[in-house]
Amino acid sequence: MSIDQRGAVCVLGTGLIGGSLLRAAVGAGYVAFGYNRSATGVSAACRDGFDVSGDLSAVLRRAAAIDALLVVAVPMPAVDSLLAEIAALAPECPLTDVVSVKGPVLDAVRKHGLEALYVGGHPMAGTSRSGWAATDSELFRDAVWAVGVDEGTRVEPWSRVVRLALDCGSVVVPVLAEEHDRAVARISHLPHVLAEALAAAGAEGGKLALGLAAGSFRDGTRVAGTAPDLVRAICEPNAAALEAVLDEAIETLVTTRDSLRANGVLGELVEAGYRGRTAYDHRATWDITGVEPGSGDWLAALHRAGLDGGVLRAL
Amino acid sequence: MSIDQRGAVCVLGTGLIGGSLLRAAVGAGYVAFGYNRSATGVSAACRDGFDVSGDLSAVLRRAAAIDALLVVAVPMPAVDSLLAEIAALAPECPLTDVVSVKGPVLDAVRKHGLEALYVGGHPMAGTSRSGWAATDSELFRDAVWAVGVDEGTRVEPWSRVVRLALDCGSVVVPVLAEEHDRAVARISHLPHVLAEALAAAGAEGGKLALGLAAGSFRDGTRVAGTAPDLVRAICEPNAAALEAVLDEAIETLVTTRDSLRANGVLGELVEAGYRGRTAYDHRATWDITGVEPGSGDWLAALHRAGLDGGVLRAL
Repeated sequence: MSIDQRGAVCVLGTGLIGGSLLRAAVGAGYVAFGYNRSATGVSAACRDGFDVSGDLSAVLRRAAAIDALLVVAVPMPAVDSLLAEIAALAPECPLTDVVSVKGPVLDAVRKHGLEALYVGGHPMAGTSRSGWAATDSELFRDAVWAVGVDEGTRVEPWSRVVRLALDCGSVVVPVLAEEHDRAVARISHLPHVLAEALAAAGAEGGKLALGLAAGSFRDGTRVAGTAPDLVRAICEPNAAALEAVLDEAIETLVTTRDSLRANGVLGELVEAGYRGRTAYDHRATWDITGVEPGSGDWLAALHRAGLDGGVLRAL
Repeated sequence: MSIDQRGAVCVLGTGLIGGSLLRAAVGAGYVAFGYNRSATGVSAACRDGFDVSGDLSAVLRRAAAIDALLVVAVPMPAVDSLLAEIAALAPECPLTDVVSVKGPVLDAVRKHGLEALYVGGHPMAGTSRSGWAATDSELFRDAVWAVGVDEGTRVEPWSRVVRLALDCGSVVVPVLAEEHDRAVARISHLPHVLAEALAAAGAEGGKLALGLAAGSFRDGTRVAGTAPDLVRAICEPNAAALEAVLDEAIETLVTTRDSLRANGVLGELVEAGYRGRTAYDHRATWDITGVEPGSGDWLAALHRAGLDGGVLRAL
């Protein structure tokens, strides 16, 4: 298959992310089908006209027969057993995933000997809702989709993953698994932890405090409304990177507390935070051009570009 | 003046909160005028048809002549010198304020011997913008307005403050100064500190981290976009209460970090945060009825009701 062709897509797990991906892929003209473990999820998807089955073996055999791109879209705790089935029934298929952490998935992929055709992925999109009922074909529109460029990545599966992400309306940021995990610890997992701590502190103030709460508390605690099991499934597979950045944040907060205690002032934190938010507001993405996938040091060039704010908008 | 009458209102400081209050009071039919220190602020308000002057002595003499309700709407660092002028020129006027902390204002009011006619106030509304250009007559619509019920509060000034808050579209929560300050440390000042820490941690991740940032980072850092001087003016006058609740939050985060380090799990925080946000989402306000302002233990009854989630929607 040339990199200009759109091969079939097989989505394994049709919850919020996987189900939205199935909708988006079908909407973009792909032959796309899927598997879901729960019978209610299968029924809901079929009622909406999608080709979803609860028979994993049959789905994987079908994918193997037509060289479909396999998309692992189950929570991290379910990844290992799914990869075992893939290794048994569809080891020659190109393989990607949409799990929120990349190092542990890559480790599991290697354990099952599937690394040759694997390319990690992570669409930076989601809501606090879950399941087929929450799926939305537009979930990935204008989102950022991280796609792996780790050493050894092959151009054929990589191109299929990138094309799928672009066809879903996203831009692609090329990343190494380890750097991805450290980055999302800062901008996705730490926000969850701080939101939980803020929500708990507010509630400790009782009805008076919650009754006086306005916009700063509402926005600062929004993601604490996510179901606890989902928060754990998102954050805990990235425990090491999250622990490091949480430790850094605690140090900042201790310095601030000590400054308040000693001098009644917040100190450097206010300027650092304002600079950080301003950098976010004015973050500039630029289009990566001039890198020919598969040629020369394409992986290293894409890696450098991703670190520097570059995105792919086209193949 | 009976408590059913709307006396004149004199707003001292016509920035975001004071200027919006002037607009809202005029809109509600009050005779309302104001003072602003900066000539550009005065000009902007006058151009929009409002009665604002830069001559503080003249404004206070006019207020004294017609028994206007004085509203102190300057940042905490400017409160003391303004109260000195009020003590000299309009000591018999009922007096309130819209400063975000109540204990330090009450202390300053006592220092100037103005406590007999003082009632603390704090509308829980604002934006990250400031100055006359940001003013909005609807800023207080459906907001919560904390109004003091500290011991010694007199019913005449209290009724005028409550009526003004209600006429601006807010509901009134009766509070003690000290309890107010502890509550807003949790739901207004701690959110600022955590947002700054999150924004700083995200920016430490460089272009890659900021490029991958999505909704959780955007919402969690929103108030870090507030001008640093404004953040300090809001938070630092409440340093003692903020330090205490920040200390509590640090303890929670340290427990979480240790749990991640030891077992790779977030532990109790996730449930506590979810409970806190759920309590916020389902917080129930109820209407305080059956308390006759000025009769019996009305202040204690209102105080108890406020602690328990009660609000005043009418006088």
